[in-house]
Amino acid sequence: MTNPTAAMLVIGDEILSGRTRDSNMHFLAGELTRIGIMLREVRVVADVHDDIVAAVRALSARYTHVFTSGGIGPTHDDITADAVAAAMGAKIGHRADAMALLQAHYDRAGLPFNEARQRMARIPDGASLIDNPVSTAPGFSIGNVHVMAGVPNIFEAMVASVLPKLTGGPALLSQTFKLMRGEGEIAAEFAALAAEFPDLSMGSYPFITNGAHGTNLVVRGTDPGRLDQAMVKLTRLFG
Amino acid sequence: MTNPTAAMLVIGDEILSGRTRDSNMHFLAGELTRIGIMLREVRVVADVHDDIVAAVRALSARYTHVFTSGGIGPTHDDITADAVAAAMGAKIGHRADAMALLQAHYDRAGLPFNEARQRMARIPDGASLIDNPVSTAPGFSIGNVHVMAGVPNIFEAMVASVLPKLTGGPALLSQTFKLMRGEGEIAAEFAALAAEFPDLSMGSYPFITNGAHGTNLVVRGTDPGRLDQAMVKLTRLFG
Repeated sequence: MTNPTAAMLVIGDEILSGRTRDSNMHFLAGELTRIGIMLREVRVVADVHDDIVAAVRALSARYTHVFTSGGIGPTHDDITADAVAAAMGAKIGHRADAMALLQAHYDRAGLPFNEARQRMARIPDGASLIDNPVSTAPGFSIGNVHVMAGVPNIFEAMVASVLPKLTGGPALLSQTFKLMRGEGEIAAEFAALAAEFPDLSMGSYPFITNGAHGTNLVVRGTDPGRLDQAMVKLTRLFG
Repeated sequence: MTNPTAAMLVIGDEILSGRTRDSNMHFLAGELTRIGIMLREVRVVADVHDDIVAAVRALSARYTHVFTSGGIGPTHDDITADAVAAAMGAKIGHRADAMALLQAHYDRAGLPFNEARQRMARIPDGASLIDNPVSTAPGFSIGNVHVMAGVPNIFEAMVASVLPKLTGGPALLSQTFKLMRGEGEIAAEFAALAAEFPDLSMGSYPFITNGAHGTNLVVRGTDPGRLDQAMVKLTRLFG
């Protein structure tokens, strides 16, 4: 059994300008790994309609799932919903189900459900809503594209709404062997070991602690038995 | 005068698996903004030759500069140099200048300059070396592609070596107006203001503090006078 694949599309000038440090990518990467969906690519693009459309099309054609973050609020720079609709060839308008959710929310809060707020009910035809337990305005899934808010706590809540509906794969496991030797010293034996285990992926990540060179050797795969075998061999080689 | 554009390509399974949280993107975004180079797109891809080649080709054709991070160490999973050479149609081999740098480095350290370490001297023909004051193994620039290490302190040192050689543009300035009102309340007036200043880019970023909704209105552009005019109007509207 193979693992489904995924890409993430982060939409936002504020990430590209360096004003805001994205945290959604790291969060989503961890969550997908846990349920056995393999994140294969991430793109960050600006708040530009054509750039969003092109990225959604490219990623949605290539991967099992696409997760987007950002650009679904009430202001003029929130253009993700319209761009995703265009990319997927869907019509978009103020949808009754989303209007009802938001109307009730603003009624409860005693705030006017004005034109800007109604923008957040623009949902493509055929999409299903993604629950937003934090601030009500929904995300949506259309085809294999899941559209979510950029604000981290809302993004995380929407991910928690969406992931249980998706079919994962065998959990993507990893084990780390840390040794206080430079990468260049162990590279040849590590490469030979990697060649012995073509079903596992092996990576090496150098670090420096108090001036001393060390390396984390990371073994990834879905078969716990094979991971254990590789770790036993690693320990024999470098332990 | 317009600003040069840039893309970044982050190479590494460890980012996509959620094991490591990337920090190079945020660092580079800030540095580029400071010198007036506009970061327009970021991609993160796995340690897969064809994926790296395709991304380098696409980004290098579209933007003034491409900056890569990751995959230039001595181990079997370090395949960036060869992939970039392939993308740029250049030959690659152990280059004499890089061999000499590394030989001297390992001689000083009293460590063998073995085959794995010699891998780090694989530099495409026609590339110029990027200085690595931290651990010697150089990055390189070929055409408009600048290839750097993934380890954050080495990446940052290489960025400091490369950026002074590039032609920037007018500094990309931004000013922020923070107000304790929800986005949906101010969206209409903010959109009208943005339409008055087509030469500036205006974005709105909601936050929640102690249960209260607030918004940062961010104005970006290169003309300090125009930014000031916009801020005066923002203050009059929402101050």
